[in-house]
Amino acid sequence: MSRLVNPTDLSFLLNDVFAMGKLAEFNRYQDYDAEAMNSVLAMAEKIAESDFLPHNSKADANEPTFDGETITTIADVKVAWQKYAESGLLSARHDYDAGGMQLPALLSMACNSYFMAANPATAAYPFLTTAAANVIQAFGSVEQKAHFLPGMFSGRFAGTMALTEPDVGSSLGDLTTKAKPHTDGTYRLSGQKMYISGGDQDITENIVHLVLARIEGAPAGVKGISMFIVPKFLVTDAGDIGARNDVQLAGLLHKMGYKGTTSTVLSFGEQGNCVGYLVGEAGRGLQYMFKMMNEARVGVGLGAAMIGYRGYLESLAYAKERPQGRRVSNKDPESKPIAIIEHADVRRMLLQQKAYVEGSLALCLLAARLVDEHEAGGDAESGILLDLLTPIVKSYPSFYGPRANDLAIQVLGGAGYIREYPVEQCYRDNRLNPIHEGTHGIQGLDLLGRKLWQHEAKGQKLLLGRIQNTLMAASAYPELGELVKRYQVALKPYMETTLELGQALLGGDAEKTLANASVYLDVMGKYVVGWLWLEMAVKALANKALAPEFVQGKIAAARYFMRWELAEAEVHLQRLKEQDDSWFSIENEWL
Amino acid sequence: MSRLVNPTDLSFLLNDVFAMGKLAEFNRYQDYDAEAMNSVLAMAEKIAESDFLPHNSKADANEPTFDGETITTIADVKVAWQKYAESGLLSARHDYDAGGMQLPALLSMACNSYFMAANPATAAYPFLTTAAANVIQAFGSVEQKAHFLPGMFSGRFAGTMALTEPDVGSSLGDLTTKAKPHTDGTYRLSGQKMYISGGDQDITENIVHLVLARIEGAPAGVKGISMFIVPKFLVTDAGDIGARNDVQLAGLLHKMGYKGTTSTVLSFGEQGNCVGYLVGEAGRGLQYMFKMMNEARVGVGLGAAMIGYRGYLESLAYAKERPQGRRVSNKDPESKPIAIIEHADVRRMLLQQKAYVEGSLALCLLAARLVDEHEAGGDAESGILLDLLTPIVKSYPSFYGPRANDLAIQVLGGAGYIREYPVEQCYRDNRLNPIHEGTHGIQGLDLLGRKLWQHEAKGQKLLLGRIQNTLMAASAYPELGELVKRYQVALKPYMETTLELGQALLGGDAEKTLANASVYLDVMGKYVVGWLWLEMAVKALANKALAPEFVQGKIAAARYFMRWELAEAEVHLQRLKEQDDSWFSIENEWL
Repeated sequence: MSRLVNPTDLSFLLNDVFAMGKLAEFNRYQDYDAEAMNSVLAMAEKIAESDFLPHNSKADANEPTFDGETITTIADVKVAWQKYAESGLLSARHDYDAGGMQLPALLSMACNSYFMAANPATAAYPFLTTAAANVIQAFGSVEQKAHFLPGMFSGRFAGTMALTEPDVGSSLGDLTTKAKPHTDGTYRLSGQKMYISGGDQDITENIVHLVLARIEGAPAGVKGISMFIVPKFLVTDAGDIGARNDVQLAGLLHKMGYKGTTSTVLSFGEQGNCVGYLVGEAGRGLQYMFKMMNEARVGVGLGAAMIGYRGYLESLAYAKERPQGRRVSNKDPESKPIAIIEHADVRRMLLQQKAYVEGSLALCLLAARLVDEHEAGGDAESGILLDLLTPIVKSYPSFYGPRANDLAIQVLGGAGYIREYPVEQCYRDNRLNPIHEGTHGIQGLDLLGRKLWQHEAKGQKLLLGRIQNTLMAASAYPELGELVKRYQVALKPYMETTLELGQALLGGDAEKTLANASVYLDVMGKYVVGWLWLEMAVKALANKALAPEFVQGKIAAARYFMRWELAEAEVHLQRLKEQDDSWFSIENEWL
Repeated sequence: MSRLVNPTDLSFLLNDVFAMGKLAEFNRYQDYDAEAMNSVLAMAEKIAESDFLPHNSKADANEPTFDGETITTIADVKVAWQKYAESGLLSARHDYDAGGMQLPALLSMACNSYFMAANPATAAYPFLTTAAANVIQAFGSVEQKAHFLPGMFSGRFAGTMALTEPDVGSSLGDLTTKAKPHTDGTYRLSGQKMYISGGDQDITENIVHLVLARIEGAPAGVKGISMFIVPKFLVTDAGDIGARNDVQLAGLLHKMGYKGTTSTVLSFGEQGNCVGYLVGEAGRGLQYMFKMMNEARVGVGLGAAMIGYRGYLESLAYAKERPQGRRVSNKDPESKPIAIIEHADVRRMLLQQKAYVEGSLALCLLAARLVDEHEAGGDAESGILLDLLTPIVKSYPSFYGPRANDLAIQVLGGAGYIREYPVEQCYRDNRLNPIHEGTHGIQGLDLLGRKLWQHEAKGQKLLLGRIQNTLMAASAYPELGELVKRYQVALKPYMETTLELGQALLGGDAEKTLANASVYLDVMGKYVVGWLWLEMAVKALANKALAPEFVQGKIAAARYFMRWELAEAEVHLQRLKEQDDSWFSIENEWL
């Protein structure tokens, strides 16, 4: 089996659960028959296996260095970048006209799953570049596109998103980077950004920063924020590298994991000559950034899911091979030791991981399927549902992916804790995911304070409709009787409580209600992933061509999920319903 | 406030909760009046702050290296070792006659709490040495004591425990290291050990390994295991360093955290001349080791608690200082940002940490109090209760300490993930604790399969008696009404289910019942720590001299614990009661 993702599972998710074949019915994807899709997938898997996986641990042990002038990254990263660029994947989602492949989002997500499992730190460079290019494609001027996109699509230029500032953190409305209009219609930027991934590196000829800044005289808060393209080197009209722009690396930050990706502090305009190009309209920077951000959030979810998945496969392989101990009932010390997978507690840790990571991957692929339905299929409802689910897609895998990696370490025991084995790196890498692109706290507020109620709560109705369809389909299978019942029983208080929280937000003390937003985020995540587990069980039973052990595995994980994971959510729902104030009403001095 | 432990909390736990002052009533501790106790504590705190804390991060960034011949450790570790040795703490718990201080276990545990918070990796050297010396003191011959203890007490020699072998892991009964009787009454050992902490280093003149091995012709399984003293250098009758013994460092292992402590692979007898001295009787090695192991397990619990505690204090300080964002209800972008502790979700993460780490520290101190009652007070019941609780003392902090560190990272956000701040190291260091000295899985089996039922389940009765006393005392405080009620309601199903599990173990399929042992371990941990939270609330309310915010903090954390943590345990209990087979009954191929 591949070390990156179980191929049967990925194929099952793409074909049985998310009907990838039907995407060709959309005009945009008409060229994507099964053969075309499989060849793209095979290409991605091959590059991930050959050029990303082999240096995953090496890049961790040899993080980029900065001597005050030059950054040095191990050469393997550049090779991987080039292979990725040569494959065409940097522009894969874009129109044929723009040099792209019009690749379905679902297929793109599946390709990305290989890279995230193989080497999330190196994969960050192409993924950030793709996200930045998407923003320029969506909101940039004709000239800006002509100037920057060819380099970004071909791999000569990388992209970044430069939002965070040292004193501002998640509170983007407070950012202070300034932009002063210049006589030639461009701007001169000044300020400092922090935690900018890929903010400098020695891999590409140029770097295209998308920078949020405040034009002189702009109002305070988010409405005063504009977006600028700030290249490391100016680009000539012919597309060549021009003069060095006044954006400097002030220093590298040293992360616990994800070490292969530079994390930077950048200074803009120390010499007073940092050229920036306004993207779209002034004051709409945050809005534009959120196009990128929403994609990035789904990308974070996928990264978390796949680092979790990688750990699951590693610990599964270890558990099948490692002999140790005997069954509890066997008192004969001369009998042969058994593989540790025979110990029930090891199976518990594997089953939990399976539930988390396969559920998380399903969730991310669902998000991609919704993108396709919305963008290529023109289905507005799918867009609304995607909008509702984005905080979940970002946060569920970010929370449970690291939990899975924690369990992977535990399965390996002492071996799991040493760098001679790969799972401890997974654990460190994955810990970034609940933080970047909006922490859990931010996702919770976004979900409970906003997303649930947008479009007159239509997203909720759409979600519920899909859940009901799955429950209906599942009811046809006696094997799933217990699971359906558990989910149905659990669904009622969830719906009631959600409604009550909505009323409380309108009529009551919103601050008190939102104090529990992170809990709601976790609870809703369990309901959404629980639904997907039921859906997987249904689809697995429906496909008679699948191996029985694969089908049984899906049912077993779904059963575990309902009995344990969803059951925990019920307790938390109870506290939400009571509008519990355990932390809301305490004083700072009590801590 | 100290960065190591909240002094008010430690003083409260020692004096109000565990009545440290009453220890002087025991004959052995009669010299320990309040002044004597406080001066020992102050000394430990000073050494921890001055000589352990400053190189905690440096030792992490510069882990020991081995060039095939020599190990090199940063010099600070040796200095810290020497200061610790000079303080007399290495032999502090031993008799005056043996050169010790007859220090109460409770006081010793409090001293250790400073070192564990300051620098768990460097603290491992003295703690391992103390544990090894205790075994020699308890089971060694007069000659062995005379040979090795003076060096171990003075800091010239360090100690280790060498159990694990590469192919054996937790299944100690399968270990294969051999011991061959020699004509002079000593033994010649041969074999390999792995994951031996401090197995080699450049800090002390000599290292005294306690090695488990099998004497030629010994039966298979645990009954064939004997314990040997194997010094790195032989020791002359005059106590001087003699010839180099045939135990060699085969290599260092490279851990994710705890990097300052060497983790080694040791080869015994490659030249056929590894001298070992049998400790006590042949075939009783595991039994002797368990004296050390039980102490080490409590020590692991303390380490996990204190690394958690350190992270809590760091994140608390950060949350009070770091301005970011505004209250949800404040829409004015020109208003001043607030400290992040003002955000309810940050308070949630701090309160959760407080509940985990102060609860864990209380648990460890309880264990120490029981040691004193048993060993110095002669109370057999306290020994029985300690025995029952040891798996909990090891595992609850090991599970929830890392959870606390995870939350500490999240409070700091991006800053939490970089090595420029201390909490990511806490997260990495603490991840060792659920693994070494018996994994969670092992603790669970020990608890549910054995400890609960020893001495005709007397431990359970003793625990329940103490819980009832606390509930009674708490009933006197109206402020605690809700908490008492929640605990009482939760206690009934716990007792019933425990009884049912006991019956199932006798009459049913023990293997099926024990499949859920890890869950039981976690559940019982929550009941025990929940009880201690109630006890802390009672004792805080009872002491009118305490600052009101300290008392309110204890009540708030206790309330949180009952509402959220204990509530989760109730769901898990439900599954335990049903003898859930979610992972017991699956096939390996389904994973």
